[in-house]
Parts: sequence; C-alpha cells; structure tokens
Amino acid sequence: MVKLASYACNRWIEAATDAQPIASAIDGATVALASSSDVDFAAVANHARHRGLPALRRLTFQGRAGLLKKLAQYLSEHKDALYDLSFHTGATRRDSAIDIDGGIGTLFAYAGMGRRELPDSNVLLDGPQMSLSRQGSFVGRHIETPMDGIAIHVNAYNFPCWGMLEKLAPALLAGVPCIVKPATQTAYVTEAMVRLIVASGILPEGSIQLICGRLGDLLDHVTGQDLVSFTGSIETSLLLRNHPALARNATRFVAERDSLNAAILAPDVEPGSPEFDIFVREVTREMTVKAGQKCTAIRRILVPAATIDAVTTAIAAKLSRVVVGDPRAEGVTMGPLVSLDQREDVGRRVEALRAEADLVIGEIDNPVVTGADASKGGYLPPILLRARNPKQASAVHAVEAFGPVSTLLAYDDVAEAVALARRGEGSLVATAVTRDADIAAEIAFGIASYHGRLHLIDRDSAAESTGHGSPLPGLVHGGPGRAGGGEELGGMRGVHHYLQRTAIQASPALLTRLGGHWNKGAPEIAENEHPFRRGFEALALGETIRTRPRTVTLDDIEHFAHFTGDTFYAHMDEAAARANPFFPGRVAHGYLILSFAAGLFVEPAPGPVLANYGLDSLRFLKPVSPGDAIAVRLTVKQKAPRNADYGEVRWDVEVTNQNDETVATYELLTLNALTERAA
Amino acid sequence: MVKLASYACNRWIEAATDAQPIASAIDGATVALASSSDVDFAAVANHARHRGLPALRRLTFQGRAGLLKKLAQYLSEHKDALYDLSFHTGATRRDSAIDIDGGIGTLFAYAGMGRRELPDSNVLLDGPQMSLSRQGSFVGRHIETPMDGIAIHVNAYNFPCWGMLEKLAPALLAGVPCIVKPATQTAYVTEAMVRLIVASGILPEGSIQLICGRLGDLLDHVTGQDLVSFTGSIETSLLLRNHPALARNATRFVAERDSLNAAILAPDVEPGSPEFDIFVREVTREMTVKAGQKCTAIRRILVPAATIDAVTTAIAAKLSRVVVGDPRAEGVTMGPLVSLDQREDVGRRVEALRAEADLVIGEIDNPVVTGADASKGGYLPPILLRARNPKQASAVHAVEAFGPVSTLLAYDDVAEAVALARRGEGSLVATAVTRDADIAAEIAFGIASYHGRLHLIDRDSAAESTGHGSPLPGLVHGGPGRAGGGEELGGMRGVHHYLQRTAIQASPALLTRLGGHWNKGAPEIAENEHPFRRGFEALALGETIRTRPRTVTLDDIEHFAHFTGDTFYAHMDEAAARANPFFPGRVAHGYLILSFAAGLFVEPAPGPVLANYGLDSLRFLKPVSPGDAIAVRLTVKQKAPRNADYGEVRWDVEVTNQNDETVATYELLTLNALTERAA
Repeated sequence: MVKLASYACNRWIEAATDAQPIASAIDGATVALASSSDVDFAAVANHARHRGLPALRRLTFQGRAGLLKKLAQYLSEHKDALYDLSFHTGATRRDSAIDIDGGIGTLFAYAGMGRRELPDSNVLLDGPQMSLSRQGSFVGRHIETPMDGIAIHVNAYNFPCWGMLEKLAPALLAGVPCIVKPATQTAYVTEAMVRLIVASGILPEGSIQLICGRLGDLLDHVTGQDLVSFTGSIETSLLLRNHPALARNATRFVAERDSLNAAILAPDVEPGSPEFDIFVREVTREMTVKAGQKCTAIRRILVPAATIDAVTTAIAAKLSRVVVGDPRAEGVTMGPLVSLDQREDVGRRVEALRAEADLVIGEIDNPVVTGADASKGGYLPPILLRARNPKQASAVHAVEAFGPVSTLLAYDDVAEAVALARRGEGSLVATAVTRDADIAAEIAFGIASYHGRLHLIDRDSAAESTGHGSPLPGLVHGGPGRAGGGEELGGMRGVHHYLQRTAIQASPALLTRLGGHWNKGAPEIAENEHPFRRGFEALALGETIRTRPRTVTLDDIEHFAHFTGDTFYAHMDEAAARANPFFPGRVAHGYLILSFAAGLFVEPAPGPVLANYGLDSLRFLKPVSPGDAIAVRLTVKQKAPRNADYGEVRWDVEVTNQNDETVATYELLTLNALTERAA
Repeated sequence: MVKLASYACNRWIEAATDAQPIASAIDGATVALASSSDVDFAAVANHARHRGLPALRRLTFQGRAGLLKKLAQYLSEHKDALYDLSFHTGATRRDSAIDIDGGIGTLFAYAGMGRRELPDSNVLLDGPQMSLSRQGSFVGRHIETPMDGIAIHVNAYNFPCWGMLEKLAPALLAGVPCIVKPATQTAYVTEAMVRLIVASGILPEGSIQLICGRLGDLLDHVTGQDLVSFTGSIETSLLLRNHPALARNATRFVAERDSLNAAILAPDVEPGSPEFDIFVREVTREMTVKAGQKCTAIRRILVPAATIDAVTTAIAAKLSRVVVGDPRAEGVTMGPLVSLDQREDVGRRVEALRAEADLVIGEIDNPVVTGADASKGGYLPPILLRARNPKQASAVHAVEAFGPVSTLLAYDDVAEAVALARRGEGSLVATAVTRDADIAAEIAFGIASYHGRLHLIDRDSAAESTGHGSPLPGLVHGGPGRAGGGEELGGMRGVHHYLQRTAIQASPALLTRLGGHWNKGAPEIAENEHPFRRGFEALALGETIRTRPRTVTLDDIEHFAHFTGDTFYAHMDEAAARANPFFPGRVAHGYLILSFAAGLFVEPAPGPVLANYGLDSLRFLKPVSPGDAIAVRLTVKQKAPRNADYGEVRWDVEVTNQNDETVATYELLTLNALTERAA
C-alpha cells in the first residue's frame, strides 16, 4: 500500500499520519493513502510565484511549446505503468486510453498549435492597429501578455490524467505555473503521472506542483493575477467561487460543473434508417463509456413521441449486452463506478428520477457482475429510464446521476425538443441526429446559446465523427449556466485565459517595438542594400525599399489582356468601363498592377529570399488608368522563424500612383534563408 | 421638484410615496425624488425576456446597428436639454460634454462598427473551419449567437449618460435587452435621456427599461443566459457578484470597480523638456476633470527621486490656478463633488492617505469657492499629497479617494517604478511619459498584465493623444484584480460578452448552412450559367464553376518575366532554380498563375460583377513547371450586402494542375450588383 505524496516546493511530501485510505473501485481494497496535512500551502503558492513563474517567463511561447512537445514525447514513452493503476479507478483499458493517451494527445496538440500559431516572444497581438488621430502620431492596438500569477487546477476524479493535462497544456504554454489538486479518489493515477513529469526534468522547477489530499488554505493566497480552474459539482464550485480572496481580487475562475446533456433524435428519422442506428449507438456508448462518469455523457434522450417505443426497445437491447465487471476480466465492457459512495450517490439520484420516470432496464440492487464481488466495488448496470409525463418532468433536467444513467423523453415537435433541451439550463454538449438540414438548423439555432458544443450528425458524417462525448483540443469545452459558464481548450482560446489583454496607446514607432509588427506611420529604415539581399536575421522591422515608378500604358493593358485571356470590359471597352460605377474609363488589371509591382522590387539573382509563398489582404483602392505611373514601397512588417534553415518575412506593400495616391495595398509573404546564401 | 419615474413594462412608474430627495451638487437644493418601491421587478425581468428579447432577435446584427445609428442621431438632435440638468451633478459644461456627447459618440461608434464588421444575420463565425476527420466528412467550427437572456446594467453616478450608453450599445447590438439601474445621485440625468430614447420610438418595446431607485429583488430573477454589468465600488460589486442566483446560474458578471491608476514620469525626462510639461499637464487635467470623480483618474504620480521636487512644484502651480465653484459661474474650471456625502467620504480617505503622505496643496476645510456657498455643495479644491516614505507607503496603493486627489511617490529606478505601479493590484489604465523607447518597453512589459490600457506618450504623440482618462469605443476599458477583472468596449470585444460561443461539429454541408460560409468539402452547386452572370441575390453559397485547363509554357514564363520585369532566377535559370530548396527547376511566377487563372474564369461582357476589389489568403502550395496545365475551381464562399446597389461576394478559388494537385488557393473579393445589370 502506497502513501501518496504531494509535490511541493521541489520535493515530495509523503502523506501525513492522518492519511485517509483510497479504495479500489474493483474490490474495495486500499490502493493508497492520501493527506496533504504536512503541506505548507503558502510556501507552495510562493514557490510557484517566485520560482516557476520567472522560469517560465524567461522562455517565449515558442520555447514553452517546445517543452510541451518534449514532455508529451516523454510521457508517451513511459505511459504503460499508468494503465495498471488506472484499472483500480474502475476504468476499462479503453476508458484508460481516453484518459492517458487522450491526455498526452492533448499535450501534443497544444505543442503543435503553439509552434504554429504563437510568436517567439511573450507578446501576442490581438486585432489590428487602430487609427486614433488625424495625423497618425497616436495609434492604438491590443496586446496580450502572460498573467503575472499562478494557476490552481482543481480536478474531477473521472479523468486523473486527461483532466490534469488538458488544463496544464494551455497554462504552461501561456507561461503560468500550475498547482494541480486532483480529486482524492483517483489521485494515485495523477500522482504517478506527475512523478513521470518530475522525473523527466523537462519542466522548470516550480512550474508544476501537486496536492494529494485537501486544498488547505491555498486559496487564501490567490491574487488578481492568478486563475482557479475547477471541474466537478456545483456545490464544490460555489465554495471555491465564493471564497473571499477570489471575490475581492476578482481572481479568474473557470468552472466546468453539472451538465444534463441531451441527445435529440429528429422527427425525420425512421426506425431502420442509418440515422436511427447512429442515434442508438451514440446514446448507448455515451451511457457506458467510463460507466457514464463523464461530464459530457448523455443524460436526456429526446425522441419524437412517434418513435419513442422503437428507440426504447433498441437502446434497451443494446444495453442488455453490456458486460459489467472487473475491467481486467475477459469480456467485461463496463467497469464499476469509482467507489461504493459514488454508487450510493447515483442510486439516490436514480430514486429522484424515478419519481417521474419508469425504469426501462437496470438491475440496480442485484447487478450481474463478471469477475468480481458485486458488493465490494462500485458496480452498477446501465440504467435506462423513461419519463412518464415529459411535459411535466423537472428532475430529469436538474438531477445529474453521474453514472450509466439516462432518461428518455418524448416530444411532439422540433420546437418542443428545443424547449426541452434548453431546460437543462446550460450544458456542455448536445447531439442531434437528423438527415434534414432545415431541422438541424432549427435545433442548432434554438439551443446554441445554451451549449458549448453541438454535435450534429447524419449518415454522411457519423462514420468519421469523433463522438458526442469527446472534447477536442481545438474545440471549446464548457458550457453556460448550470455547466459553469467556463471554457477550456478551444485551441488558443484556452491559452487566453492565462493572458491579460491590454490596449496600448502610443506612437506608431513604439507600438511597432511593443508588438513586433510594423505598421504604416511607423518609421521606415533605409539600408544601403536591397532588403531582399539581406539575411533573415539582419532584417529589421521597418526596413524599406521604395522603387522607381513605371508607367502603365494602354498597350500594356491590351497586351496583358490578350496574353492572360482576361478581357474584362473594364480593361477593354472605354464606354462600358465608364458606365461602371467604380471606373473612370479603361483601367489596368489588378493582376497587372501586382505583376508590375513585383517586377519593380524583385531581385533577380539568388539571395536570401527563397520564395514568395503567398499574399494577404490585397485591396485595390484606386483604379490605375493608362498613363498612370506606379511605384512601390516595400517594408519589413513581421518576422517569424520557422526552422533551422529559414524564416517567414511578412512585407507591407503599398503601390502608389504619380499623385502619391495609394492604388493597392497588400502583405507579401516570403521565406528567407536564415544566413544569407551566396549568389 | 420632479418625481423621477422608472420605465418598466412599457410605462412610466412614478416614484413611490417613500421617495428620497436627491440634492443638487451645487447648492444642496432638492433636484428630484426617487424610489422604485412600486416597481414589480419580476415583471420587469419578464418584460425584457418575453417582449424585448424576441423583438431584438427578430432583427439581425445589421438591423440592430441601424437602430443604434438612428438612436444616436435622435439623441444628438435632442441632447441640449440634458446639459442644464447636468450642471446639478457638479459637472462643468466640458464635463457634461464628455458624458453626453461622449455617450452619444459611443453609440455612433458601435453603430458604425456593427455595420462594418457584423453580418446580416444572428450568427458570427469565430475562427476558421477545422478538419476533424481524414475524409473530411466531419468538420468543426465555432459560431457565436446572442444569449437568450437579458442584461442588467448597474451604473456609477459620475457619467449618467455615457455610463448607460457605453453598456447599452454593445448589448443592443448583440440583441440583448437591457434593464438600466443608474446610481440614484444623478439618476435624473439618466432618466431624462431614457425619456428621449422612449420618445424616439426607435427601439422595440422591452429592449430598454429603467430603474430609478433601488434594485429590489431583480437579481433573484436572473438565469444563466443573462449578464449583470456593474460599475462602482468593490463593496457593492461583491454584493452583486456573490448574489446566490448569479453564483448558482454562473450568470455572467462584468465588474469595473476601484482603480488606483498610476502616471509614471520616466527617469530620462528632464525638467523643462516637452515630456516634463506633458506629464504635468496630463496629471493636472486628470485630477480636475469631473472634479477627479473618474474611475480612470490618476491617483498615483510616480516620479524619479531626482525630479520629484520639480514635478511637485510644477503640478502644485498648475493646480493653484484651478477655479472651484458653481459650474455655471463665469471662470469656474472645476465644479463640486456630486454631494456633501461624497465630499465627506473623500475627506476621510484623504485623512487615511495623510497618515503616510504630506499635503502639498489643497485647502480642504475652507475651500475658496466662486459663485456658490461652499458649505452647501460638495466643493473641494484639488488635493496633492506626497508620500513621506514611498517604499513603505501602502494606503496610497489601496485607498481610492474619489475626488480631485492624487499622491506623489518618488522612485529610484525603472524597476522600482514598475513594482510600485503593480502594487495597485490591477488598474484600468496607466500613463508613462518618456522619450526613451527602451524605457517605455520595460515599463509596458512590466505592468501590462496589471492593466487594461496603457497610455505611452512623448512629444511626438502627446499632441494627438486622446488622453489618459478617456476610454475609447474601440479599446477595452477595464482592468484585472482590484479593478474588477471586467472588460467593456473594445469594439466587438464588448459585444462578445452578450454572445455565446458554441463549437459546431457537423458535415461540411451543414456547417456551410449554419455559418453562412462555404468551405471546401461542402457540396458544390453547378448552375447552367456562369456565376459571374448571376445577380447578387441569385447566387447561392457553393455555386461553382470549373474552368478548362490551360498549359503554361516556358515561353509564357519568359514572356511574362520580360513583360513585367520579374526575372527572378527561379523563373529564368534552370540550374539556380534547382539549387533552391523549394523548386524542381524553372517555375512559373505566382502572379502568372494568378493572371492566367483570372483569364480562365473572367466573363468579359458587362454583368453583375462590377469589380474585383481584392484578394485574401493567397498561398502558393506547389510550383507550376513549364508544361503543367492549370485549371480553376471558383465557388461562392460568402455574401455580404453592402448597400442598395451592390454587395460583396467572397469566392473560394483553387488552382489545380493536370494531376489534380492544388497549386494555389485564395479568396477573391468582388462587388456584385444587387440586380443583374444588362450587358
């Protein structure tokens, strides 16, 4: 029997003498002992603040993304040991894969998104530069910088690894150290993973600490730069949210709590159709994966009154084939709930639901169990209920039985299905299965504001669907109202929780420096050599070349038209062109302007510019008439290293005419060698 | 003497018999009586929910932006009456302009941003479409839709008009009805403005209601789809935030509360320099505008120890020329505080500050007052303090004296200035004045995460600066920690508070329909006629033309190079091109591909397409070698009406080669006539 340790202030602090036993979900035997009584929580907060924080801030977003990738690789290589422990939580091997591999996958995903989307600095730009003055000497822009604080992650028992990593990844990427407090029931799996993380030596000291046991007075030490993220019940959520230090400091609080997720079978779906089978399969899977202990599990099954008998029969048939037992035993497809307490709690809630719903299937009192003693673990069969009077039912919309439990409700029409789904008062996710795009749209617009995620499938998309119950790193996970109003994941959206947005008002020159992004109005730098001849490293933001002018003749336009085949009347027919509201007469092709512009600034011989790989935000602002002379200003706008060989340079390009009027603007993208290549 | 009325459930409900008098700031005479005792708050919430909400949701973002514009115009024409009332709040004419014209300006700004940036629907797209499957049959994207709820705005006394309108504008634009609860001290100005709004008849019934008096049990009726936005003190903020209904429903709560804003004079600034004068002017103005009753006022003046005597003298000299008195009297430059109570409160806080700071200037007990009896109104002179021991001082970082009060603190170096600014524990705004970009950057990065806005000025930008104290519609207003952790304004960022983000997982076809945006993988629609010949209205998302192929010859490349002047070696020199890591040998110019592509799909004769006005997100994905044959797919991606004559069409363009490999992708922008124009 192992004493779990907390990892605090760079050392492992074993469970104190008052440690409480944690029972195996399988047979009730003690798996571990946990207590955090010997932890000095003020010291933990200080350690994160004064060691972890500066170490993480010394790195850039790119640097931290690199750490996440290394960590994910390390965990991937050492994960096997976690699987054996994980059985004791009641998880089947497949459940554990969601937790362990899913968690590591989330880490990989954030590492990749960080590398692709974040800069090699600690400043993110948010939105475009804004003009705030007539002459342009005073401009505005929003930046985001890492919070000068710490993250406290209070996690649920059902995913001891994924639950930690899905919060850790965005926080560390943002540069904020974390204190992880797993739910005690399954903390031994989390502890084992944190031991791997510590052993890897990849993360800077103080960037992760672990509390196995109670949270102590940790929250007394939070500031307005910190963040507390919670997953669990409404009741615990309220205790944290209403903590005086959080309220007074307006400490960011992200909660993911109760959720009565719905699955809606649309009225167009007939029994026997592919959509019918998809719906039955999805509901059954969501009821039984992780023995229904998932915040995203389907709790409310909304089906047309006309179809409800068929749906009931089909789901019950599928559920009857579920084999409950010791997840290590051959043939078992669903493990026990995490504990006897949890089974009791679910039992009580099922009782509450039965006040308004009939039991369709589920031997609650004497479950058939494979390879285990039913009385010693949290064994419970899948329980399917059916609301007696769906229009009056209320418990079904409010009581979350956190186990393999779901309730069928009949509805009359789509409007009623929407109204019933809304009665959950905010959920993480809803599924709708329909072949009819009109119905899908009606449901989606009807319930979107009550949900963090909508999963809308039919025969074309179901085969490749990632499923109702799976939060993905790139999509937000969270929901309004009852579900807590928080958001996690969602790609960079999850990172923004740990960043502060600040509006900067300054001169264009200073803003260029702060944001790492040149804009028109900021100083231009003229070097002796063409910037296309200077290596990536040597280029400075603002470095500019202005070309000689080139006159665009009518011959050029005619020639270009016939060469390319673009004989649009605005280029070819004076009278027709004049009749167009935007043109004074025949005008040059936009692509002719672009091509001539390139001809004016290109450097023919080999040099550091390897390729023009794209162009953004091209706008033609004023027509170019025959006889106009165009010239180009080309300025280094932004630089981003890509790999050891080259980086990406974004150029601000402005094409003007002989009257200095802007005829076109765009951003040109080139790949530039890191060290200048000889001709 | 007027009895203020609440505007509830479509009628004016006069102050009840228990009404409390509101005193004029000028002379203590009763201006109005207020009480909301006769208001049925449950009915108010229901009225907003069941009348205002459906009416606003029937409109689109564009439609609501139109209403805001009309409303702003109406208020602009009728605003004069408000100025006379506003004097009684203690405001000078200039102060009133900030409140009244500033508020109307914010409404105009949101109307304009709404027209430019929001769609003619109730769905906003958030981020790009994401691939979630190998075959592409299941994809993801985030949308935002209006919350299905109501907004309760609890406002501060200092800006009775702006304070209402800056919250009303984003909420109404989002489609959420508002219940406005102004601070009672100045509610008579707000009431007068709401009477104008109601009289205008522009807003749908139920979209705005007004509570003059107490909030009653209104908060008992909030749901998880609602939002409560508060401006005022920490104490009141906590009462609202901790209300059980808000906590349990995770109701969105936006707070803007105490803020000890700093102004930092950098060590490079010498007395006598332009920056020195800029700093003194900015501090003095922020202390005296609105008699210092501004949440953005400068409370902490951080100056180098070497300069503090000179700064003290200069600010004191300027403050000594401030004329305090009845704002209607000739020559008066600063009016009274809002009330005698407020003067007493400020007096108590000044006492707290004097425990650690010396009084530099400010006759607190016997202020010299012009045109009024000092004892009858909230008259107070500007009060400048100087911390005796800046390293030890603590009250100065925590006690907000909400009047013309500010404290000087000396610092030794930039790091100490940063540390002192942070001790405010989160502020709305800080100003730094420096000519040195290194110092500006050090300050900015040091304090950004503690601030919602940074105002960084020098001689080049100060003349056009909008000032330390002015929140702008396009920039966020709010701050972390003590300042409440909320955000207002910031352009569309302020609208997002009233929208719910939802991840949609569906087939590409369904996502196109829900988001109003076609993406590759969604069905293509083939019509008999070229889409360039079809009017704006007739075009459907997904309408596609696929062109014949065109072979690109070496002659074409040579010809294009010499014609345009773009003789980059990758097009001209086989050996050099091969040495480039991206090219197999000589390749076609990107702009040649673009130009030939246009030649393939253009329709020469006059038709609904009026102009190609730009192009976005062009990426060259694979080189085109001589002999390759390119063809184009052109698909309607998005449509946005612009005015009565034309709309904007965004086309998804893909250029492929003879092996069906994508060589380039981009989005083409055209302006298309609303009704088809004859050739």
